[in-house]
Amino acid sequence: MLENVHIVMVNTTHSGNIGAAARAMKNMGLSKLVLVDPLARIDEEALQRSSGALEILDNVKIVSTLAEGVADCGLVVGTSARSRHVPWPLQSPRQCAAKAREVIPAGNKVAIVFGRESRGLTNDELHQCNAHVHIPTVANFSSLNIAAAIQVLCYEMRLALHENLESVTADKWGIEWDYPLATHDQVQGMLAHYDRVLQEIGYTNPNTGKQLMAKIARIFQRTGLDQSEINILRGILTATEKLAQGDKF
Amino acid sequence: MLENVHIVMVNTTHSGNIGAAARAMKNMGLSKLVLVDPLARIDEEALQRSSGALEILDNVKIVSTLAEGVADCGLVVGTSARSRHVPWPLQSPRQCAAKAREVIPAGNKVAIVFGRESRGLTNDELHQCNAHVHIPTVANFSSLNIAAAIQVLCYEMRLALHENLESVTADKWGIEWDYPLATHDQVQGMLAHYDRVLQEIGYTNPNTGKQLMAKIARIFQRTGLDQSEINILRGILTATEKLAQGDKF
Repeated sequence: MLENVHIVMVNTTHSGNIGAAARAMKNMGLSKLVLVDPLARIDEEALQRSSGALEILDNVKIVSTLAEGVADCGLVVGTSARSRHVPWPLQSPRQCAAKAREVIPAGNKVAIVFGRESRGLTNDELHQCNAHVHIPTVANFSSLNIAAAIQVLCYEMRLALHENLESVTADKWGIEWDYPLATHDQVQGMLAHYDRVLQEIGYTNPNTGKQLMAKIARIFQRTGLDQSEINILRGILTATEKLAQGDKF
Repeated sequence: MLENVHIVMVNTTHSGNIGAAARAMKNMGLSKLVLVDPLARIDEEALQRSSGALEILDNVKIVSTLAEGVADCGLVVGTSARSRHVPWPLQSPRQCAAKAREVIPAGNKVAIVFGRESRGLTNDELHQCNAHVHIPTVANFSSLNIAAAIQVLCYEMRLALHENLESVTADKWGIEWDYPLATHDQVQGMLAHYDRVLQEIGYTNPNTGKQLMAKIARIFQRTGLDQSEINILRGILTATEKLAQGDKF
């Protein structure tokens, strides 16, 4: 679906920003870049900042007006740092991405339009959009670098259109853990061993309250031990135990 | 709360990236930038790319090691593009921001650590972190510009810590934890003690590979130890140590 999200840059003045935009797009899986009446060329600086996103720069579409650049798009969203005189539907980047996810499966293309480095989009350009999107910022320093703004929007688009967010959220410990998690029994067995060893080394005695051992158990319960880690911990406990038992003789 | 999120850049080679990072931070309301052994200076290029985020550049903290840069932080998260040999708790930027929101109200500082432009963080540096964060990307073009990556993380931090747009995931460890998190220094001190004791009890020796200790460190890094737990663990280590030393006589 990400190929149906077009990034449109209007009157860009710094070639480095075009290259950085291409890199951000390729990182996130977008491919279609449109330049409206660019004031910068795709030069050495652009190539360098693109860091190898060459196919995006090679396939860039250059047009002379915004209307031409977004002609085939069903949803056109203009980025805006300022609140405007004429109110317009205003979305957060996340809402914008959710909207894209809604409309793209029906065959629509989505354009996200970014204005000049110095002063954004004109009112006339903003009025050609279906909605405006605003990246939350501090009030008195609200202008993001254009490539940074493109990075944020492309990131939200990737999360909404490509990543399976549910599974990312569920999968707390990462997808490529090397050992299976220890079972409840294995963790309890290790903790009982731990309790015994603490008494053998004289750190606790049968009259020590239960709270200390509860706190130690909590450390290991919440960390989510795997089976190799249980083996390591039990190895250490056994070595400590031998030392303590040897001490008695 | 955003003032308690520190951005830490390790061995940065391009001054423009430092400036762009400062701009992204200021846009999002963060203020504390730490440079670990930077290879670039804060020069004209940095000032230009900062676009006026001068107070961040003026107040930058320059240190020589990562340990020094994150010493006072209770939660240290390293950015990682690759999957690693030793798996570590892996978060999405959104999960990372939710975690920050959980721990900052209790007085903890959070560090987000970014590696070299060319090759990220070393394994040793990643092993000093409590968790790793990965920005979702396409598989074959996964390296974001460092300032773009900082922009994404700062954006998620702003949404979670400042804006009221997002409902944050339920807190895993509770917002009413009884003790403050241990600082990086306190955890490292405990782990060094642990390493020493393992040798004293004969479980390891100077020729044992580093991977065993890395695995033990990982258990304690990811569990998010508080200060009372550090005291318990050090008490046990001291008791074990005395036993081992007594054994020699």
